[in-house]
Formats: sequence, C-alpha cells, structure tokens
Amino acid sequence: MLDLALAYSNARREENLAALSEFLRIPSVSTLPEHAPDMQRAAQWMAAAMRAAGLTGIEIVPTAGHPLVYGEWLEAGPDAPTLLAYGHYDVQPVDPIDEWRTPPFEPTVSGENLFARGSSDDKGQAFLVLAAAAAYLQTSGRLPINFKFMVEGEEEISSPSIPAYIAEWQERLACDAVLICDSGMLDPQTPLIVYGTRGLTYMEVIVRGPAVDLHSGTFGGAVDNPFNVLTRLLAQLQDGETRQIRIPGFYDRVQALDDEEHTLLAQIPLGDQVIQHLTGVRAAAGEAGYTSVERASTRPTLDIHGVPGGFTAPGKKTVIPARAAAKVSMRLVPNQDPQEIAELFSRYLHSLAPTTVTVEVNTLGLAKPSMVDFRDPAIQAAAQAFQRGFGAQPLYMRMGGTLPIVTDFQDSLGVPVVMMGFGLPDDNLHAPNEKFHLPNFYRGIDTVIHYFSLLGAA
Amino acid sequence: MLDLALAYSNARREENLAALSEFLRIPSVSTLPEHAPDMQRAAQWMAAAMRAAGLTGIEIVPTAGHPLVYGEWLEAGPDAPTLLAYGHYDVQPVDPIDEWRTPPFEPTVSGENLFARGSSDDKGQAFLVLAAAAAYLQTSGRLPINFKFMVEGEEEISSPSIPAYIAEWQERLACDAVLICDSGMLDPQTPLIVYGTRGLTYMEVIVRGPAVDLHSGTFGGAVDNPFNVLTRLLAQLQDGETRQIRIPGFYDRVQALDDEEHTLLAQIPLGDQVIQHLTGVRAAAGEAGYTSVERASTRPTLDIHGVPGGFTAPGKKTVIPARAAAKVSMRLVPNQDPQEIAELFSRYLHSLAPTTVTVEVNTLGLAKPSMVDFRDPAIQAAAQAFQRGFGAQPLYMRMGGTLPIVTDFQDSLGVPVVMMGFGLPDDNLHAPNEKFHLPNFYRGIDTVIHYFSLLGAA
Repeated sequence: MLDLALAYSNARREENLAALSEFLRIPSVSTLPEHAPDMQRAAQWMAAAMRAAGLTGIEIVPTAGHPLVYGEWLEAGPDAPTLLAYGHYDVQPVDPIDEWRTPPFEPTVSGENLFARGSSDDKGQAFLVLAAAAAYLQTSGRLPINFKFMVEGEEEISSPSIPAYIAEWQERLACDAVLICDSGMLDPQTPLIVYGTRGLTYMEVIVRGPAVDLHSGTFGGAVDNPFNVLTRLLAQLQDGETRQIRIPGFYDRVQALDDEEHTLLAQIPLGDQVIQHLTGVRAAAGEAGYTSVERASTRPTLDIHGVPGGFTAPGKKTVIPARAAAKVSMRLVPNQDPQEIAELFSRYLHSLAPTTVTVEVNTLGLAKPSMVDFRDPAIQAAAQAFQRGFGAQPLYMRMGGTLPIVTDFQDSLGVPVVMMGFGLPDDNLHAPNEKFHLPNFYRGIDTVIHYFSLLGAA
Repeated sequence: MLDLALAYSNARREENLAALSEFLRIPSVSTLPEHAPDMQRAAQWMAAAMRAAGLTGIEIVPTAGHPLVYGEWLEAGPDAPTLLAYGHYDVQPVDPIDEWRTPPFEPTVSGENLFARGSSDDKGQAFLVLAAAAAYLQTSGRLPINFKFMVEGEEEISSPSIPAYIAEWQERLACDAVLICDSGMLDPQTPLIVYGTRGLTYMEVIVRGPAVDLHSGTFGGAVDNPFNVLTRLLAQLQDGETRQIRIPGFYDRVQALDDEEHTLLAQIPLGDQVIQHLTGVRAAAGEAGYTSVERASTRPTLDIHGVPGGFTAPGKKTVIPARAAAKVSMRLVPNQDPQEIAELFSRYLHSLAPTTVTVEVNTLGLAKPSMVDFRDPAIQAAAQAFQRGFGAQPLYMRMGGTLPIVTDFQDSLGVPVVMMGFGLPDDNLHAPNEKFHLPNFYRGIDTVIHYFSLLGAA
C-alpha cells in the first residue's frame, strides 16, 4: 500500500505541479475585499480537489468572512488513529508588485523553484497533504489512518472565524493528532519540527499631561512633558544590561528549559553570527544567560513598536505635546498567560507613573503560547517520516512567532499538534517573488505519505 | 514738549486706530509664498507711515526674503541718547480660519478690543512706537532723543535675514539702548519688563539597529530593538525625581539667581496653581528647589517633542523597526552656550549607547540665551514710563521662550535691550481671534512718549 502510494506520487509529479499551478492562479488575497469572488473560487477549487483525491463529506462552510473547506476519509476503522490536517487557501497581498520578476498569479517554474504568491504559504503545502492522501486513495482505495482535512481562507487576516468552529466542532474534529504543514526547514537538507509557538500580549500606553499642546518656551520646565514621562516609563520595562523584563511577576510562570531541550536547541545553527548576518545588526543582543536561538524562541520578549504622537515632521517645533503614546508587545512562552501579563504590565506602569499625568493602558491583542511535547509519538513519527522523505533527521525548534490556532486545537481537542513544514528560509513569504522549492514539494508529498503509513502502523 | 505730545496722542486716538486698522488689513503672512505681494505692500505701508510721522532716511531694504524697513530722526544732537526701536510687520498664518469669530484681516472693534491677525503681534505694538514718535514730531518738530526704527518682515519665520544686517550695520544702528515692544503685561493693570530670554539647542537622535524592519516573532529577543534602546537613552537625559538634566556638564555655566532676582521673581503671580489652571495638568512639576516662575524662565529645560519612526497607525503590528528617532530640545539660560550644550548632549548619548546599534545625533537649531541687567538706567527709565503710562510699577521677569534677536543686538551693538510690551495673556497670539486691548494701545503710546522723555532728560 505504501509502495503503491509512493510510486503513484512519483509518477504524478507533472500532474501535481499542474494542479497546484491551477490553484495558484486564483488570486485569493483574503484581506482585499475586491478578491471576495476569488476566495469563493479558491474554496470551490479546494473542495473539488478533495473530491478528486477521494475524500468524502466535503463541505464548503460559509463563515462571517471567507469560507472554510472540510473533507474527510474515515473508513480506516475505529482502531486506526485519526489525523486532522489543517491548511489555508488564502494568500498575502502582492505589493510591491513592481518587485516581482514574474507575475504573482502566473505560476512560473525557474530552475528548481515554482514562483507564485501562495506557492509556499500555504497553497503548495496544503495541496501536498491532499496529494499524499490521493496517492493512497487512488491506488489502494484506502488510507492507513482516518483522515480529516480543514482548509481555511482567513489565516493571513488572523483567522477570525475558525476558533469558534474548532470549539463548536469538537466531535467532528475529534482526532489523535493535528498536522499543520505551514512552516519551513532550515535548508533543503535539514528538516525542522516546530514544537512550540510564542504567545503575545500587545499593549498601548497613553500618557496625558496638559489639556492642549503647550509652547515649550512658555511652560517648559514647569510642567511634566508627556514624552519625557513616557520614555522614563518605557525605559523601566527592560533592564539595559541584562535585557531582562522588569515587570514584577513577568517571569513567574515561565517554564525553564530542561537539559534535553537545551541540547536539542543547541543543534540549531542560529548563533549570534547568523543573527547578525540575517538582520544586519552591528551585534546580536538579548537576555543574559541564553543563546540566540533560545532568546528568539523559548524566552519572552518585550518590543516597543512605535511611539505615536507629538511632532514627527522634518524640522523643529518646540511643542510640549498634550499626549504621548506607545505600542508595546510582549512575546510569551509557556506557561505565561497573556491576560495576566497584560494586567501585570498595566499595574507596573501605573505604579511608576507620576501624579502629574494620567496614564491609560489598553490591551490591543492577546494570544496564548503553545508547546507540544517533542517526545510525543505523533511527533516522533513525523521525525521518522522526514528521515524517510529527506534522508535526514529533523532538528527541533520552537517558533518565535505566534500561531494562535495551535492553542485552539490543543485546548479544544486535547491532542498534539505536529508542525511539519517544507518551506525554506529564502521562500520570500509575504514578500515579492514567493517561491516553493520543487524538490521539497515532491519530497514533502512522500514525507506525508510516510507519515500516514507510520501513524497507521503504530 | 511732553505735554504737547501727550495731548496730541490723546486727540488722535481715532486716527491712530484707523491707521492701525489700515495696516492690519494687509495680510502680510510671511511664511506663505502667495502673500509675497502683501509683504511688499506692508513694507511700503510702514515706510509711508514713517514718512508721515516725520522720520527721515527712510529705506525699504530688500533681503533674500521679505524687506526690512528703516527710518530715523537724528537731530536731537550728539549729547542726546540714541534709541533703536525694533518691530515686525509680518504676521502668523490664520489657520484654523473657521475658529475666527471675525475675519482675521478685517479689523473689528468689539468692546475694548480690536480683533485682527497681527493686532498685538506685532503690528499694533510696532505702530504704537511710531505713533509716539509722531506725537512729538508733529507737535514740537523734534524728539527728546535720537531715534532709529527698524521693522522686519521675517520675525514669524525665525528672522533669517536680519542678523546679518545687525552685524553689518553697526555704525548705522549705533545706539544707547534697543527698545522692543513685542511682549506683554501680566494683566491690564500689571506691566511687565522682560529682562532675559532663554536660548535653545534643538537636537535629533537617530538609533539604527537592523538593516531592515524585522518581524518581532522571528527575531524578537535576539536583537536590540532601536525603540527599546532609544527610550532607555532618552530616559537617562533627565532624573525622574528631581527633574534635573543628567547630561554631564550641562549646568556648569548656569548663572545662579542672586537674592535680588529671587525677590523680584517672587512677585510674579505664576505659582503652581496658576500653571495648573493655565495648562490643565493634574499637577505642576519641575526641577526640585525652584518655583514655577523660576522653572519656566530662569532654569534650563529638556523637552522631548516627538519620537518619529516605527509603527504608529491604529491597530497592531509586530515590527522591530530598523530605526527610531527623537526630537529633543533644551531651553538654555545665561551663560550656557548652545553649541557646547549640543556637544555635551551628543557626547553623553554616545557614551550611553550600546554597541549593538548606531547612534546619530544631529543639531537642528541653536539660539543663545540673553540677559539684560534690570538695574540698567535704560530699563529703570522703562519702569518709570510704565508707572506714568499705566499708574503702576512693572514687575520684572525673564521670558521662558527664545528671542535670538535680543542677543544679536547685544552682541553687535553692546547695549541693553529693553523689552517693554503691551500685549495681554489672552491676546491669542498665533491663534484664532488675535486681539489687542485698546486701552493698552492708547496707554502704550503714552508710555513710549514718556519713555522718550525720560531717556532724553537723563
């Protein structure tokens, strides 16, 4: 059954590339209202592809935004494990369009790469999961596991609709593991398994002083300037030497790395030199006592994104602004609670504020961190699948960014989430000239075929 | 001679109001290129008014910008003192025009006030000096002093042209004192003599980190965020408790208040409660050990005006900006040197900056502080003139703002500058509904007549 599936997938490379290219021609940009009809077309295309692959129970589910597409194959029997795969058919906008070397919605093969918006993120990766299922169903008429596939159209706009469905459809989505193919490898020879994501608490701070903007000649020195106060408050959020966050209680729930995880992460080739090379900073810097890869993935952070208000035009104006504001976010790690961190942040700033000003602290966004036990059999099976598909053991890493859907799945379904991705660091996600490395596309299909087989044999 | 002049001025109130209104109808907004012809008209109007008053040697002097107008009357003889008066015929823009209750360039009398742009700042005050000279020349054919009058058209755009003329015309402008009528009284019963102005050092700080904006999920924690660094740098400029400026050497040249000046300033009714009322702050605040009036006029300050860069739109974006900037100015007092302060500021920030970023510090503007000895006979004569014109002794105060021309006059001509103004705090300078209190206009003419007389008798 496995051999037939692998042989089928090997024989169907051109057909799979052609089908993916057809999918990529639909400009399903979720954030732009004028593409609403394309969102419908992309959802219908995915439903048809599910049907062609041999899935059943296919449904296009209308949401308040763009539709969800769902399909399944549940005939492996009650003893076989059930895998729920997740992907998304929406893509990022294409601006700046002038920087594309080929039209973003005319998929173009150049060398080993397929260039198109969505090729890697995530149409290519969603399609390869389906191609793996098809390889089984079209050869043996069955899969070694029960399979559920949910593809959404709002991932690039923060998935506003899907959490409610995940919560509501606990029975329909019940499974033993969730597979997400929407991440990347370190290089074409080095697969990566992501076993955690950081959470986020995004805050806004507003400091109000005088009722109106004042002339700094007339009143300078006699009233507190909201920008002077705000910068003093912000400076107390993080220690300048250790880069530790100084909000009382901030680290209380942070889960320490154990030796095994420490060793795992030491294998990731993302040292200070690499950080410096990738970002162009004069020198990497971060929390004392941690390596770059730990700082960027397993440790919480605090970043000031902007300080709106006041005078920002060219030239000079001697104003004491009536108000100053700041946008600040914190990346969180297990087991920090975003809401609690928002409260600690707010309490700390209020405790520091002088009585000469009014301080307002608003929460703009909250997302939970996630963590999967990398020793879980569903993850270890993924590692074996990578070994078979790419001939290499994967490295393990937590992701520095935020993927709230991971927590949504974990919390609602109580199962591990397997993040097994086939993108590459130079795939230009969210940027011009997005591409998918075609050897990764074909090996990705084989890897998922192996994954189904390994899960089914367990 | 004095009595004749006072009687003339008293009899000519309507004519003086009519003449000023004619002057105010010319929309001489120096900053707006479309008003260039109005600038010419206003200069010609002033030259004609000088001629009608009886001045001689009248000249409209073209500059790189708007013309200077000069006139004189020098027949009081070599033993009589010479006074150089300065004023400006240009005005501020009128935005927001919707907030004017009467058209800004249709002078309107309402109650005791004349509403029009420039009525107080400075056409009304420049004109009243000329009206005082006319009162003598049209009655006795002579003045008790030698008199020079220079009126510029670029004061509201920072006087780019006039310093060069002041420096070049040392002989032509030679005098025993300079009179500037471009300031105000505390209230209609309380005249004020300004005997000092603060200087200014206006800086820009730019912190550069990564080569391009980074995603805070991917790199947050592993690189220094330029905004985190910048706010730490800015917070170290001023002590949060004492509000003292922490730049090493900053206070080294600051001249301390002597007991006499301390006593003088204690009479100014500008305490914390007044500051609070005027500005709407929750509580006044400033450098420990000083009163509000001292903080706002005799002590140096540091104000952050804005922090350009980064993400400032509504909503949230998790960016580590490639650069962060700040606009910071310091008001300076005698004997601080603006250029030296710029260097101390720059050196201090560079000494604080971590090696992970590049810090660039630029000087955007420099202006010297000024101070006149309030015991100088030319100032004491002004006090006596106020007593005669308003029936009240003036208070003495230094101005918190910057008037670079004061230093230009002092440095080039080596004489005291007498700042004797007739505006009121609610005259709406630079704002809609600018007005001039007509009793102050008429008493102002009389006060200047007395001033000429007192100087001539000395």
